[in-house]
Amino acid sequence: MKINYSTMTEHLGSSAVREILKITQGKDIISLAGGLPAEDFFPVEAVREAYSRALAGETSALQYGLTEGYIPLREQVAARLTRQGIPTDISEMLLTTGSQQAIDLLCKILLDPGDAVLVEAPTYMAALQVMNSYRADIHIVQSDESGMLPDHLEEQLRTHRPKLLYAVPTFNNPSGATWSKERREQVVSLCRRYGVLILEDNPYGEIKFDDSADAYPPSLAAIDRSCGEDSCVVYTGTFSKIVAPALRTGWIIGPAELIRVVAKAKQAADLHSSTIDQRALYELLRVFDLEGHIRLISREYHSRMKQLSAELSSRGWEDAKFEEPRGGMFLWLKLSTAINTTGLLPFAVEQGVAFVPGEVFYSAKPVKNAMRLNFTHTPPELVPLAVGRLEQAISQYSQILETTLMPTLE
Amino acid sequence: MKINYSTMTEHLGSSAVREILKITQGKDIISLAGGLPAEDFFPVEAVREAYSRALAGETSALQYGLTEGYIPLREQVAARLTRQGIPTDISEMLLTTGSQQAIDLLCKILLDPGDAVLVEAPTYMAALQVMNSYRADIHIVQSDESGMLPDHLEEQLRTHRPKLLYAVPTFNNPSGATWSKERREQVVSLCRRYGVLILEDNPYGEIKFDDSADAYPPSLAAIDRSCGEDSCVVYTGTFSKIVAPALRTGWIIGPAELIRVVAKAKQAADLHSSTIDQRALYELLRVFDLEGHIRLISREYHSRMKQLSAELSSRGWEDAKFEEPRGGMFLWLKLSTAINTTGLLPFAVEQGVAFVPGEVFYSAKPVKNAMRLNFTHTPPELVPLAVGRLEQAISQYSQILETTLMPTLE
Repeated sequence: MKINYSTMTEHLGSSAVREILKITQGKDIISLAGGLPAEDFFPVEAVREAYSRALAGETSALQYGLTEGYIPLREQVAARLTRQGIPTDISEMLLTTGSQQAIDLLCKILLDPGDAVLVEAPTYMAALQVMNSYRADIHIVQSDESGMLPDHLEEQLRTHRPKLLYAVPTFNNPSGATWSKERREQVVSLCRRYGVLILEDNPYGEIKFDDSADAYPPSLAAIDRSCGEDSCVVYTGTFSKIVAPALRTGWIIGPAELIRVVAKAKQAADLHSSTIDQRALYELLRVFDLEGHIRLISREYHSRMKQLSAELSSRGWEDAKFEEPRGGMFLWLKLSTAINTTGLLPFAVEQGVAFVPGEVFYSAKPVKNAMRLNFTHTPPELVPLAVGRLEQAISQYSQILETTLMPTLE
Repeated sequence: MKINYSTMTEHLGSSAVREILKITQGKDIISLAGGLPAEDFFPVEAVREAYSRALAGETSALQYGLTEGYIPLREQVAARLTRQGIPTDISEMLLTTGSQQAIDLLCKILLDPGDAVLVEAPTYMAALQVMNSYRADIHIVQSDESGMLPDHLEEQLRTHRPKLLYAVPTFNNPSGATWSKERREQVVSLCRRYGVLILEDNPYGEIKFDDSADAYPPSLAAIDRSCGEDSCVVYTGTFSKIVAPALRTGWIIGPAELIRVVAKAKQAADLHSSTIDQRALYELLRVFDLEGHIRLISREYHSRMKQLSAELSSRGWEDAKFEEPRGGMFLWLKLSTAINTTGLLPFAVEQGVAFVPGEVFYSAKPVKNAMRLNFTHTPPELVPLAVGRLEQAISQYSQILETTLMPTLE
């Protein structure tokens, strides 16, 4: 039967990352693709006991719950956010199926087809997917190493009158970059002035490689809240990287009125997220040293990042460049401009290594010679092998480039 | 800050049921509103052990999973569906956050604003909410006690060229009605002929009050699959009523190509539903006698339905009418046409009883003197009290009707 799909389906890209993950499953491929935290550090026993406590005798734990989410967990999350400089009341919060759902619901209630959204380049690919699914017009704000450029931001705010600015300003996925404090203040100030909401997506912000206090700038949300009334930053975070992804529990906070609208949208979408997972998280947080755990994984991820960094640097590939990220899960590697990393990928997979080609992280004018490398998931002892395989792939690919180019030079 | 919401938010009703549930929380109100299964019968210990097994040592249980859902659970669900006459392969299935998400995702990939959808009247309110959120044009197909009327269905198919027909043909929410076998065959046949997809929503179909084999007609999906190729029925079911709602795990099955498109939409919406819940369900189903459990709750619900039915009949309210449902969770009570049940509700709540006014279940031309009564959640010993309170409310309300009407008769 011929099915006539809605228009939005024409704008539904597939996740390049997930497609790659499917290819790599089951094969002898070392994957530096994927945004997978390290399984070795998942607190399985603690989580298991937490579920056991959550389901100990209370049948109401299995009943339908509130759309906004299990109140005791909201209270814990609100307390953590308040300690992180984002004073939050539970009426300003919704628990969601990961941050992905937070992004989807916010875009759903804000964006009509043709509405403008401002983003960085590069940025989180699945957020671009969501915006495209709502047929938004996505416009890039230029950045430098400190973050979005205020002058260009103002120009874009004026020109496009966007509904929303989406940013991952801390340990950005994919670039690993972090905006400076000053740049954050400027962006918040400009968006307030122009009455534009910011969605700050901060899944990695707690995975810091520098232990010292004040080593990192405050979140946009913290800066925004300290400006007083008329909040312009909507903030989403998640337990996916700091506890484990399968819990599918994140949060979105913002002005109470907006959160009520998001809640209505969520009601229609799935009634509510898993209350069993939410109760289990509550039970976990009551006894588990989450901050200690975060320090532990941060230290390990720091070590893995340094190892990948050293391995890459030691190779001396022509024109290869990268910045060591100060936290998070990803390293953004640029190769010679002669190399198209999308074209390189099949060679890499054949050699037994995977990465994410950089161009998928751009809404427009993609940079073609970059790749996102994840350092959290690969066992350290395999990193030299992985980088070696990448080197082989680059070598093969470059040779083929040369042989196919030669004829055109005659 | 003034927030300009998208157009869809204007079409986002609130769930009347959820709003009522909020009012009734914490007060001494016996709620016959809500679609809550009985907590007493939730298999808490079995579920608790299942989570424990799911998280026993395997860290990968906490990692990101497939959008389509945990394969072993999909296999179990496919096997059950096949036993129920709906031959299913796991490539034709997606696990979702309850059936609510299945409805939302299917509408998202099919409906552009203004696209037509055919429904019964009354029907599941939160499905109407979803369709409205996509700005579909909803048209009613007339029914009688056997289900949709084929002649009117054909007329509506011709006139409106709908994208979708949505139905709850077994123990309908809210009416409790069940379509006859013949009517099901006619509807499937017509939709196949006109190339229109049917979404069969079947959350209650296994809660049967009659134990005998062949007491109930086959699902639309089973009939459709037996017609051979060119499937026109998309089918959604859930563990919410037969195990417990907090697990938020349902399934959608359909033509493989369509399921792939639904999967892409789900990817953008929330990456995937809780894999911990899915693994736990898999572990549960390996050892738990689910069919025995369903027989147990069905017997109890049958008993509760009979009790409510007897209590209502014994009161002899003027012009009150209802049919005993043959399964499921709801009884549809009609009162005298002088009574507007939406107007009656505040009186009922004041007396300490709640129900859902019937008009919320209509996309148009609502019947105003009906109400949906849930019989699964109220402890049996409270039913006479609940019905007594309803009687008081009707009495008060009727008196006020008389006193306010009198002046107009002069």
